[in-house]
Amino acid sequence: MRNNDIRITHARVTPIAFRDGPLLNASGIHEPWALRSIIELETSDGRLGIAETYGDAPMLLALEQARALAVGLSPFDLNVMEQRVRASIKPGQGGGVQFELAPGSHTAKNAEKVISALEVAMLDLQGQLLKLPICDLLGGAVRDAVPYSAYLFYKYAEHVDKPYAPDAWGEAVTPEQLVKQAQAMVDQYGFKSIKLKGGVFTPAEEIAGIKALRKAFPTHPLRLDPNANWSLQTSIDAAPELDELLEYYEDPTPGLEGMAELAKHCRSPLATNMVVTTMDEFRRNASLNAVKILLSDHHYWGGLRATASLARMCEVFGMGMSMHSNSHLGISLMAMTHAAAAIPNLTYACDTHYPWQEEEVIKGGRIKFEQGAVRVPTAPGLGVELDPAKLVELHQQYLDCGIRNRNDLAQMRKYQPGFSGKSPRF
Amino acid sequence: MRNNDIRITHARVTPIAFRDGPLLNASGIHEPWALRSIIELETSDGRLGIAETYGDAPMLLALEQARALAVGLSPFDLNVMEQRVRASIKPGQGGGVQFELAPGSHTAKNAEKVISALEVAMLDLQGQLLKLPICDLLGGAVRDAVPYSAYLFYKYAEHVDKPYAPDAWGEAVTPEQLVKQAQAMVDQYGFKSIKLKGGVFTPAEEIAGIKALRKAFPTHPLRLDPNANWSLQTSIDAAPELDELLEYYEDPTPGLEGMAELAKHCRSPLATNMVVTTMDEFRRNASLNAVKILLSDHHYWGGLRATASLARMCEVFGMGMSMHSNSHLGISLMAMTHAAAAIPNLTYACDTHYPWQEEEVIKGGRIKFEQGAVRVPTAPGLGVELDPAKLVELHQQYLDCGIRNRNDLAQMRKYQPGFSGKSPRF
Repeated sequence: MRNNDIRITHARVTPIAFRDGPLLNASGIHEPWALRSIIELETSDGRLGIAETYGDAPMLLALEQARALAVGLSPFDLNVMEQRVRASIKPGQGGGVQFELAPGSHTAKNAEKVISALEVAMLDLQGQLLKLPICDLLGGAVRDAVPYSAYLFYKYAEHVDKPYAPDAWGEAVTPEQLVKQAQAMVDQYGFKSIKLKGGVFTPAEEIAGIKALRKAFPTHPLRLDPNANWSLQTSIDAAPELDELLEYYEDPTPGLEGMAELAKHCRSPLATNMVVTTMDEFRRNASLNAVKILLSDHHYWGGLRATASLARMCEVFGMGMSMHSNSHLGISLMAMTHAAAAIPNLTYACDTHYPWQEEEVIKGGRIKFEQGAVRVPTAPGLGVELDPAKLVELHQQYLDCGIRNRNDLAQMRKYQPGFSGKSPRF
Repeated sequence: MRNNDIRITHARVTPIAFRDGPLLNASGIHEPWALRSIIELETSDGRLGIAETYGDAPMLLALEQARALAVGLSPFDLNVMEQRVRASIKPGQGGGVQFELAPGSHTAKNAEKVISALEVAMLDLQGQLLKLPICDLLGGAVRDAVPYSAYLFYKYAEHVDKPYAPDAWGEAVTPEQLVKQAQAMVDQYGFKSIKLKGGVFTPAEEIAGIKALRKAFPTHPLRLDPNANWSLQTSIDAAPELDELLEYYEDPTPGLEGMAELAKHCRSPLATNMVVTTMDEFRRNASLNAVKILLSDHHYWGGLRATASLARMCEVFGMGMSMHSNSHLGISLMAMTHAAAAIPNLTYACDTHYPWQEEEVIKGGRIKFEQGAVRVPTAPGLGVELDPAKLVELHQQYLDCGIRNRNDLAQMRKYQPGFSGKSPRF
């Protein structure tokens, strides 16, 4: 039997939930359980290809509608799969649903998200069949390891409803606590770049946090991401101080026009995963020349191949590439690592929430970092396998936790009933 | 041994020449011999990957400089190969050379052309190793066969210096002869679209040619390509008549600005392989909104993967995709077919000069067309193999013919000593 005679016979989508810390952000605070979904594609020769993506109810609905589209295809039929999904899931139309990205992010085309999930699982199958790591299916790795950044969050010591024992990271609401968190994360993971999720406290407090980090880590590139929670004027006013401190200034203010105006007032390059999340926005940004660094994310840009194409587009339009993350487990981390390994101009350390998670759904447990980087896998496919017992356990947590749509605002109001949720707040 | 442990051990570049008809164009007339080069990459396990590209002296110089860059790589190291070539061959710099595309075309980056040649040969090796056709390495075919267009040329009955017996196509300098040529080509190949290479006679004569074709082929989409040999005003003046006749209006007038101005005066979409040949030009076109259909060509756009990325970019920027050709043999035809098979939005029938060639360098001789289309190969790799005896023969023709750089203008002056070569001429 030829490799491309093998067919996908079953497609499963399993929502899971895992513990997540009380991390503060522009919208509010993380709930105690983060949702994801695991895609499994079975083949006629008994292989299992896997992917990990969003687990909110609208995404599950889209995936449930779409999974049958993969059945009957060869794992090599990525283009036909894309055509099928695009024909079935149209943005804002009857069969389609719009769903949420990270808080504050724009909704983007459902089709791109579904395509990404199916593509990663199909590439995993391709790699297994061909005995090649996925990065070799993307033109080969240009680096042996993919550097990630320390992703700092302001946070409370524990969740308001105390659903389980508090995490080991402790509270971080002051510059000193932030430096302590950074030190612990750098010590454990070896990260060489540091990102702070801001938009939580006043800009003055967050700039003080960045200054404290600069003092404690004089050579680590620093990034601040106020998650569009600063007005344009606030962002402009903060720019002179931040220009001296930041590698890039990520999504301080909402909207492409606001970012374009801000770009005239700061020397730090502007970065985004909020105002350029679709090709339409990419095109508009190209004409406005607002954002200079794109935080790519294969989960909503249509997969690993589309992310590689996006990287070529960034090169054409003079933009740098970094990588965005949501709360995720090891399957996503491996997909991100394969993509980043094969994209020459992805030269900024990638974001990852991985240190904030304790659980895993893959065999062998948590993925190791070396000097802040993940070694590019050389095993076939993604290079990780699903642990069926863990999948059952994390799915049970999903059933039990009761969360079906992430709501950081409602969660925040459990701590501060009067929390406005106004955006931009500063 | 794992597939990605196999290494490229030798890289050869062999210039060839084959008979080419006395085809008229904006620059002059085709010489009796067309030049190409054949790239051969040998692996440590004894395989041979092949590609076909330009054969002019500057391209041979670039390929000779670059071929060593492939040695030692795995056939899967496409991204590293690209990095190496880009680092070695910089446009307009010391080690680099600029060379000619089709007459009237812009020179583009040498690196993209060299990358393309090496990439096709490496993908051929990948496909052989994995027992998959190249289109499966590009996400899989979305069509079973790739439609090509009948590519008509004004031509003389034979070459001025009569180097060999005249071809069977005969003279075509009148509308009647053009229709006869079209009929013969459609009869033999089954083409469903017709393109006329214009820029040869006066616009009135060429419009008369198109009208005669429309009458003889009432349902075939028609295209006219004056090869930038019409002034802007001439192109504007011709637009109302051509609007009724053409599927697209290809490169009537030189320069992106000229095409942008023309776009305001015609209803036919403008197509190009002349004013958008590099990513810089792509970006400029996106802001000028001049050309609506891009004739892609993997030979100068950086290969098959880059062409697939370009197709995604065309979708983003609301452009359609067709495909350009130069005089070529079956290796290029197969590479074009794999790329086109895997690009969903390549919806226009592709150009090919193939009917104008009689010779071949592949085993099994000339590739067959069915109903104007080439069936997408299912054999591993490109799906065609080099015929070593034919390669020797066509290389000898290269050595013997004495042509080292295509010069359609000098050739034309053998027929018409006073031929101005002025461009635009009309």
